[in-house]
Amino acid sequence: MPIATRAFAAVAADKPLEPYRFDRRDPGPDDVAIEIKYCGVCHSDLHIAKNDLGGTRYPIVPGHEIAGLVTAVGGNVSRFKVGDRVGVGCMVDSCRTCAACQEGEEQYCVPGMTQTYGSADPLGEPVSQAITQGGYSDRITVNQDFVLRIPDSLPLDAAAPLLCAGITTYSPLRHWNVGEGSKVAVVGLGGLGHMAVKLAHAMGAEVTVLSTSDRKKADAERMGAKHFLINSDKAAMQAAAEKFDLIINTVSATHEIAGHLNLLARDGTMVMLGLTTEGMPVFAMPLLWRRRAVAGSLIGGIRETQEMLDFCAEHGIACDIETIAPDQINEAYARMEKSDVRYRFVIDMAKMA
Amino acid sequence: MPIATRAFAAVAADKPLEPYRFDRRDPGPDDVAIEIKYCGVCHSDLHIAKNDLGGTRYPIVPGHEIAGLVTAVGGNVSRFKVGDRVGVGCMVDSCRTCAACQEGEEQYCVPGMTQTYGSADPLGEPVSQAITQGGYSDRITVNQDFVLRIPDSLPLDAAAPLLCAGITTYSPLRHWNVGEGSKVAVVGLGGLGHMAVKLAHAMGAEVTVLSTSDRKKADAERMGAKHFLINSDKAAMQAAAEKFDLIINTVSATHEIAGHLNLLARDGTMVMLGLTTEGMPVFAMPLLWRRRAVAGSLIGGIRETQEMLDFCAEHGIACDIETIAPDQINEAYARMEKSDVRYRFVIDMAKMA
Repeated sequence: MPIATRAFAAVAADKPLEPYRFDRRDPGPDDVAIEIKYCGVCHSDLHIAKNDLGGTRYPIVPGHEIAGLVTAVGGNVSRFKVGDRVGVGCMVDSCRTCAACQEGEEQYCVPGMTQTYGSADPLGEPVSQAITQGGYSDRITVNQDFVLRIPDSLPLDAAAPLLCAGITTYSPLRHWNVGEGSKVAVVGLGGLGHMAVKLAHAMGAEVTVLSTSDRKKADAERMGAKHFLINSDKAAMQAAAEKFDLIINTVSATHEIAGHLNLLARDGTMVMLGLTTEGMPVFAMPLLWRRRAVAGSLIGGIRETQEMLDFCAEHGIACDIETIAPDQINEAYARMEKSDVRYRFVIDMAKMA
Repeated sequence: MPIATRAFAAVAADKPLEPYRFDRRDPGPDDVAIEIKYCGVCHSDLHIAKNDLGGTRYPIVPGHEIAGLVTAVGGNVSRFKVGDRVGVGCMVDSCRTCAACQEGEEQYCVPGMTQTYGSADPLGEPVSQAITQGGYSDRITVNQDFVLRIPDSLPLDAAAPLLCAGITTYSPLRHWNVGEGSKVAVVGLGGLGHMAVKLAHAMGAEVTVLSTSDRKKADAERMGAKHFLINSDKAAMQAAAEKFDLIINTVSATHEIAGHLNLLARDGTMVMLGLTTEGMPVFAMPLLWRRRAVAGSLIGGIRETQEMLDFCAEHGIACDIETIAPDQINEAYARMEKSDVRYRFVIDMAKMA
């Protein structure tokens, strides 16, 4: 029997999100049915709700930082049982056969992963849901291979944003071999940035935060940053030239990146994580002069996401969150656009009206 | 006794190069005195002669693709003797103590390498040469550690441009691990590009050339390219999406790079080699979506330059050149600005008037 689901959906680019009811599919043999307890609010949600990237199909229920409890499992599911603490991130399926999927990098699936919301839904929801619908809702049904286990020591609310903000920063730190003594800079101390600081610090890196003001300096230091730089302070930026092996750039608005490249040491990389839409000018000189690179990175694979959750449990790391009721989502979006959140909004589904 | 030297120098940004006489220093204990037989003409020479990058001090003798014969050696020099076939590239010294120098990457010397022309000259030329002067000249004196051996099987004239065009393309091919079966694209079939094709092919890569027209298609295929793409052919570019592990971008004029990024496979890198001066817009999406990177690379270290020369000898690779007399240099510059050279001008010093 289809699962009645209460949600908040965007219905048009220029309208506030509103209550929305639909049915989730009953779990098939390989599915896990989940009661969503918490869902983090990612900047991408806002981009999609407002159609900033184009192509949004309405109504859309955003949300891909999902934490909850298992309510039912299909006949083929042995790794999860009713009552388990689980998470769902940005993907709910992928082709499973391309090289990326075979290597556990489902986020780079060649035909394209099935995103948690807004993707064509090959499994289909019973009441003609042609596209997947996300975590601003109290129920979800997900194939077991895309369900993560949330370790007991992590609180469900503060763990929810790990499913996107956590893995999106963990994966590049691992990919670019951050470890003991690495010099890592984090640009922007928001949802992604604060996780990058905590994770890089836990990996043994010496972390510097670059921000537009010193408003968040005390927070950054509490999270593990050793140094704090204000981007507009030319003397300080000059003094930091060639210091960093890796810059994690979390800014999700178009911004000036060229001035940051000189901060990289030889063979250093600046990794862009934000979904900016306009071109950002890059100059050849700073790249050539020290064999530097500008790269991008997108979330992480399922195996690596589990590794990240286990790493967070081991190191006592979770997100700094501000919990809201579902009907506060529009206010939360407005505050996010002013970077007024420390450091992630998380919707508490128990407060669904 | 100082060594009387005949040269061609730029005397101002807006004037043609003209004959110029000066003295080279007598070889000190660690020096090698060289009679220059040939010097390649690099696009950077033109940038510096015309002060495109700012900071050019006149008069300046360009040229950093030098091939010649040893005429004298200092007392500490045991690796070279009179008559040896030698080359000098873009550097004539470096600090020798920084991490880059210690690792044989003198081109990334932290205090800065001493470039073959236009650098402050710590050794000084006897007749008050405050800056180094390059290879559009018939004599040069260089510290032995920055002198390369040109294998006997390589003709001196066609080997000269290997000292810049050769190493500038060889180094990134090695750094990004090109080998058997690698898929490499080369953007621009000029001095650098034609060497990238030959070298990548010799390393076992499947090489594709991207160019603005098919004028050079037959040449590209002769050099080892398997495929040839015209950048403006949207259907062909679309069909080549996600094909390449590495793109060697040799274009030294500002150009549209964003459209090339989709050609890269997951974890692929586009390496910029040209000294473009304006910012080129890069978009976050194609970088994020496949963890792609845009990087830069600058020539190569001395040890690697020798390795490249030996590799070329082993594989029978040299540059495709057009030989000119020194007094044809201004005409050559004019033709280079129209990309009218197949594929490198080389000055024959025997024709010095």
